[in-house]
Amino acid sequence: MKTSTRALIIERADELFYQKGFDHTSFAHIAKDVNISRGNFYHHFKSKDEILDAVIDFRLSKTQTMLDEWDQEGDTPEARIRCFIHILIRNMSKIVMYGCPVGTLTSELAKLDHASLDKAGAVFSLFREWLARQFDALGFSDRSDALAMHVLARSQGIATLASAFKDETFINEEVATLNLWLEQQLASR
Amino acid sequence: MKTSTRALIIERADELFYQKGFDHTSFAHIAKDVNISRGNFYHHFKSKDEILDAVIDFRLSKTQTMLDEWDQEGDTPEARIRCFIHILIRNMSKIVMYGCPVGTLTSELAKLDHASLDKAGAVFSLFREWLARQFDALGFSDRSDALAMHVLARSQGIATLASAFKDETFINEEVATLNLWLEQQLASR
Repeated sequence: MKTSTRALIIERADELFYQKGFDHTSFAHIAKDVNISRGNFYHHFKSKDEILDAVIDFRLSKTQTMLDEWDQEGDTPEARIRCFIHILIRNMSKIVMYGCPVGTLTSELAKLDHASLDKAGAVFSLFREWLARQFDALGFSDRSDALAMHVLARSQGIATLASAFKDETFINEEVATLNLWLEQQLASR
Repeated sequence: MKTSTRALIIERADELFYQKGFDHTSFAHIAKDVNISRGNFYHHFKSKDEILDAVIDFRLSKTQTMLDEWDQEGDTPEARIRCFIHILIRNMSKIVMYGCPVGTLTSELAKLDHASLDKAGAVFSLFREWLARQFDALGFSDRSDALAMHVLARSQGIATLASAFKDETFINEEVATLNLWLEQQLASR
């Protein structure tokens, strides 16, 4: 029972940090949203920074699970890279409203000069290393990490612009362009 | 004298919003930073939202001036697009610390569901329309706006990743890749 209350707090905080921003979401706001007593809440977390830490662990775990699923789903490294690109489509409506959860949290923590910036960046690193492994399996050897970073940057830029202009069509168009880019990379090996 | 105090407040708020974030920067923080009395400060601005409004006007004006300069500096539309791409190099150290001022502000205001989001997005629109004019002059006609948005998104993604990984080399590499992309677009007209 204790575990599930803790998990509930983390899940709600994860959503609130994403939708409202970390700094803008208060400790009290999360407690109110989860609808438990202040005492019970304090039993699980003493500060908002502790919650942030748990939220990042939660995101790291969710991301690893997703990457493991893509390893199963995708028959080829190319298909697996397309799984990554496709999250822009799958999460389209949320991206248009709030941007990318990973990119916007790291951007915010960078400005706050927050001690957890590196830890939040580790979510990017999981994607980066996984993408680099796919490019490596496709034979790009020493270019694999650069290509992984390129795909990550492209997806971040698409999310930022789609959110700024509230434009879902732009996501569809840029995903098509990114898939085309991937084909060109494979053709030019 | 009144004008210069107002201008000073706007300039400091512009920096603070960029470096610390809009939500994290308090009205009192700006007043303290400018080092003027609370009364004098209130004479110019009644709320942080009023300051934000003035900061966005300031950014719109600075952006327009920069675009006008690029119109003079660049002999060709291609050279002018390269002026845009080059700001990633010129502002490298700040981008690594705080990301892009335009992208991070719109991302933050989107989460805050802030009334000034559209106005902040107008800075993106200035770049978008200017870039589209360059692509149009290069003969891309109905693809001009899509190419402008593509370049904007690429630059945003580069800024976000460079800031997350604190990586200046990545900016240099991706700027080279983006310049190469521009050459390929021109060659395939």
